[in-house]
Amino acid sequence: MSVVKAIQVPLRGIVPPMITPLNSDGSLDKESVKKLIEHLIEGGVHGIFILGTTGEFSGLSYSVRRELIKLTCEQVAGRLPVLVGITDVSLTESIALADYAASEGAYAVVAAPPFYVNIDQEEMYSYFKQLADAISLPMFLYNMPSHTKLTIEVDTVVKLASHERIIGFKDSSAHGVYFQALCHEFRNQEDFVLMVGPEEMMAETVLMGSHGGVCGGANLFPKLYVSLYEAAENRDFEKIRKLQGSVMEISKNIYQVGGYKSSYMKGVKTALSFMGLCQTEFAPPVYPFSEEEVEELRRRVNKITSMLADQ
Amino acid sequence: MSVVKAIQVPLRGIVPPMITPLNSDGSLDKESVKKLIEHLIEGGVHGIFILGTTGEFSGLSYSVRRELIKLTCEQVAGRLPVLVGITDVSLTESIALADYAASEGAYAVVAAPPFYVNIDQEEMYSYFKQLADAISLPMFLYNMPSHTKLTIEVDTVVKLASHERIIGFKDSSAHGVYFQALCHEFRNQEDFVLMVGPEEMMAETVLMGSHGGVCGGANLFPKLYVSLYEAAENRDFEKIRKLQGSVMEISKNIYQVGGYKSSYMKGVKTALSFMGLCQTEFAPPVYPFSEEEVEELRRRVNKITSMLADQ
Amino acid sequence: MSVVKAIQVPLRGIVPPMITPLNSDGSLDKESVKKLIEHLIEGGVHGIFILGTTGEFSGLSYSVRRELIKLTCEQVAGRLPVLVGITDVSLTESIALADYAASEGAYAVVAAPPFYVNIDQEEMYSYFKQLADAISLPMFLYNMPSHTKLTIEVDTVVKLASHERIIGFKDSSAHGVYFQALCHEFRNQEDFVLMVGPEEMMAETVLMGSHGGVCGGANLFPKLYVSLYEAAENRDFEKIRKLQGSVMEISKNIYQVGGYKSSYMKGVKTALSFMGLCQTEFAPPVYPFSEEEVEELRRRVNKITSMLADQ
Amino acid sequence: MSVVKAIQVPLRGIVPPMITPLNSDGSLDKESVKKLIEHLIEGGVHGIFILGTTGEFSGLSYSVRRELIKLTCEQVAGRLPVLVGITDVSLTESIALADYAASEGAYAVVAAPPFYVNIDQEEMYSYFKQLADAISLPMFLYNMPSHTKLTIEVDTVVKLASHERIIGFKDSSAHGVYFQALCHEFRNQEDFVLMVGPEEMMAETVLMGSHGGVCGGANLFPKLYVSLYEAAENRDFEKIRKLQGSVMEISKNIYQVGGYKSSYMKGVKTALSFMGLCQTEFAPPVYPFSEEEVEELRRRVNKITSMLADQ
Repeated sequence: MSVVKAIQVPLRGIVPPMITPLNSDGSLDKESVKKLIEHLIEGGVHGIFILGTTGEFSGLSYSVRRELIKLTCEQVAGRLPVLVGITDVSLTESIALADYAASEGAYAVVAAPPFYVNIDQEEMYSYFKQLADAISLPMFLYNMPSHTKLTIEVDTVVKLASHERIIGFKDSSAHGVYFQALCHEFRNQEDFVLMVGPEEMMAETVLMGSHGGVCGGANLFPKLYVSLYEAAENRDFEKIRKLQGSVMEISKNIYQVGGYKSSYMKGVKTALSFMGLCQTEFAPPVYPFSEEEVEELRRRVNKITSMLADQ
Repeated sequence: MSVVKAIQVPLRGIVPPMITPLNSDGSLDKESVKKLIEHLIEGGVHGIFILGTTGEFSGLSYSVRRELIKLTCEQVAGRLPVLVGITDVSLTESIALADYAASEGAYAVVAAPPFYVNIDQEEMYSYFKQLADAISLPMFLYNMPSHTKLTIEVDTVVKLASHERIIGFKDSSAHGVYFQALCHEFRNQEDFVLMVGPEEMMAETVLMGSHGGVCGGANLFPKLYVSLYEAAENRDFEKIRKLQGSVMEISKNIYQVGGYKSSYMKGVKTALSFMGLCQTEFAPPVYPFSEEEVEELRRRVNKITSMLADQ
Repeated sequence: MSVVKAIQVPLRGIVPPMITPLNSDGSLDKESVKKLIEHLIEGGVHGIFILGTTGEFSGLSYSVRRELIKLTCEQVAGRLPVLVGITDVSLTESIALADYAASEGAYAVVAAPPFYVNIDQEEMYSYFKQLADAISLPMFLYNMPSHTKLTIEVDTVVKLASHERIIGFKDSSAHGVYFQALCHEFRNQEDFVLMVGPEEMMAETVLMGSHGGVCGGANLFPKLYVSLYEAAENRDFEKIRKLQGSVMEISKNIYQVGGYKSSYMKGVKTALSFMGLCQTEFAPPVYPFSEEEVEELRRRVNKITSMLADQ
Repeated sequence: MSVVKAIQVPLRGIVPPMITPLNSDGSLDKESVKKLIEHLIEGGVHGIFILGTTGEFSGLSYSVRRELIKLTCEQVAGRLPVLVGITDVSLTESIALADYAASEGAYAVVAAPPFYVNIDQEEMYSYFKQLADAISLPMFLYNMPSHTKLTIEVDTVVKLASHERIIGFKDSSAHGVYFQALCHEFRNQEDFVLMVGPEEMMAETVLMGSHGGVCGGANLFPKLYVSLYEAAENRDFEKIRKLQGSVMEISKNIYQVGGYKSSYMKGVKTALSFMGLCQTEFAPPVYPFSEEEVEELRRRVNKITSMLADQ
């Protein structure tokens, strides 16, 4: 892990939730993983988050998850912090993944609440504490109510943040009041990292004092999100306005083809395939767009690409 | 209506959703209405919104609603725009309230979707169009999914905004992605007014280009919210940081006593009663805090007041 | 009210939630009201419930609601108990409607929780108690979480049932465990009336000991639902099987045309118009089917009618 | 698998969702598994379902799941059909579990939708079809919206039921209309098995023609549920009334101690520990009752036991 020592601590900036390139038989598309990582690093991102929702963690077998952890750590080779999603319904399996991530040199793990059993905040606190106690890497909490159907309440985050290994929080709730409440609680703890998931909210939350974004679109256009992050950090409002416009056009055009609940996941991966960075293979239950949808997406991606080229 | 002509158009700034002062028999506490309006005007607010959710519109009889409209317009006397909530489950009753508001000199009306029948976007569009066609005042759309259990989708807002009498939109969803999507859609239409309900999000959304906030806390501390709005407009980040901290302390302390679903409504009105601006009478189904809760709130309000005095 | 004295107490059987026939200008279609009432009485129903969800109460002006109360009581003329929905967001307006219903000779009122403000069970209890204290007629509680977004919890029903004027409960939750819990609580109180809304569950709940159903489809085919009720009371399983099949075909065919959230309401009223019992005019936000949808519904209604004729 | 040949096909009756006895280190408590199985078989149940929600499948490691499958099949030794839950978020892991269950001699597998990614019905259909195509055992579909936050819609069940290996359906939605719609669709397919999860609805649904129940309480009192099932089959209403009363008292007393979202799971396992059939060890995120809660539960269980002894 010595290579990671040089990494900026605490984490700041754009940490893309990397999609997982797959082959048609469900195995890991290793060449694409390597190309995609290089694409992200060239784009200037500040970290790489694998095995998140965008990375289709839930649909992958454990052996594919391990292969991805190993390959990512090898390919990144200490150039950036690697964050590894270990969200699971079984504490035992989460711990096993965290141990593996540690052994491969990951920077930190990221965990959402166990997402099958309905639980109260006390049970959630107890679960995260047991998890943090059992692992060796630093951990980010991950609030993802649209998928886990549970919210890590503000008080629970505050209590958990006193654990030495819990170093940050990623919020994908899109709930602006909730996120401001967290920013307020941690306003004097600069080393506790606060990031939003929804890229549409990244600029405003950084303006208000948070630390970056886990932006799915940064798989496609890493430089755009890095530039917007920097513009927000520098309070360059002219640039924010322009770049935020691009981010919103991406959101509107690339994430909503076909009207599926999974349109975002289909859209990002399929658009990446246009760039030669992966195949259009998904882990079930997600499956590829129809041909018509692919063509519709291609038109939209071309429009976005032209727009970005003009900036 | 000539007095309103001098009002800044389009609307910008802080428009408190005024609470409705009541007597113990459920009738309007007229003296408190007058005092509260003067308190708001002295606080520098940019408009007054009556008969919103904070104003307990749903619990009031129609005769009390009319009395409040009349008295507010008289007391304000053209010094500020008066916005009147006309949300109802019956189109006929909404139109009747809008007609009355027009006859009393209100500036505009505000309408959320009808909130009993489950409807689709097409039915929602049709409803708002019928409403806007039938009235004479300008109208703001009001997105309030926590109460109406319906969302006015972005596309529906965009379609409705082409109606000559629909001049703005208030969003109380607290959904940051949704609000940014709306800001993006209307980025080139400066005359279409975009405001957020949750005061915790006001500063960040104004920084991103929206136009103000319908802040419940401005009933209590109008100057604070006006100052924060101005700081956001002026991109004065030192001031934003300090004032946002106060806003978050208010949110944390005053809106959460007792753990009721209605704690916010109880908290604002009870705190106002400490200032002598109303009684602690609510429209059913809301009822007053217990004595212990009142004392707990009093301690918290005192703490906030000291904090604000020190700034 | 003397005419109602002869009515079976406590209420048992099929109490259709009567649709509200309207003219194209939104006024009450009085001739259709009369015809529809006669159709129901001929069909053998055990009571008539006006101004429920199926009756589009929420979309009607108060003057139309009063006209309907008056006309229904006059037309029924004591032949059946008339139940009047007084659900509202304003306690004052609910009480006023209840007073009017009493003055016109209604048998009882029916009230769901106030449906705008989010409240806790304690506030709900307090609200219903205030309402029951303030009126003179007997009252049924009405659980309708799909529309009010509130559930009257079992304990709250039990507490309220001790009020002398609260005589029964109608549950439209479709939640089988919840309804069985209520049946269990009241297993030794035969005079507390328990009815389900969803007609698809009427037979099974009557078999388990409840007292009837508020079946929307009984607007169309009152005899069918009365026969199914009787079959369930008589534990005639051969008949139950056949009639339940018809009820399910109605549910599948008539309530789901067009895929609207309001398909049920559109379907019942439009099918009734085929029988000459009303026009296809709705209170906003509901509007009529398209011509294609009307034709699709007509085919389905014809199929159902043939099926029923063959029985 | 030859031993299972003697089993009644299609499945009928009471199939308890067996809890999973654990040791304090999270390993399988094998002696308790054996004792519990014998307790169930003595109680006359018609099958045993392991690794369901009540069995805490989601919290168990894969190695514990496999141990339980092996041990259960060995202990049951063909005396009853063993149903194995294979619900997972990863199709690959579900298939692996199904293969293991087949190799150990299970009768069938049971699968709920993958419960992390939000999906549409088309994706759900595709997922179940892939799963059924890939396995060798018969499969039951498992509708569990309170946990998966997805509903297998009626049309999707109907389409899937044509698959040769999909032989039945277990519904834990508690939605009475939904279940009646399914009963109606399969009214002429006696070999497609329809069972409800919530034991409170078992009697009424069997009366209406369905085939049994997956009753959690049958872990504790298997004879009671078997007797109620038989009474419903025999339309013995006196017996139904008495036994249903006991079932409702169990639901009210044993499943609601402490007011946790997980009170049901805590209650069943802790009550079983009073009978010496397991320890009070849970898979995280669930943890044991406090001492006071245990004593409260003990009082309630004693009350229930006396009540059952008196019958």
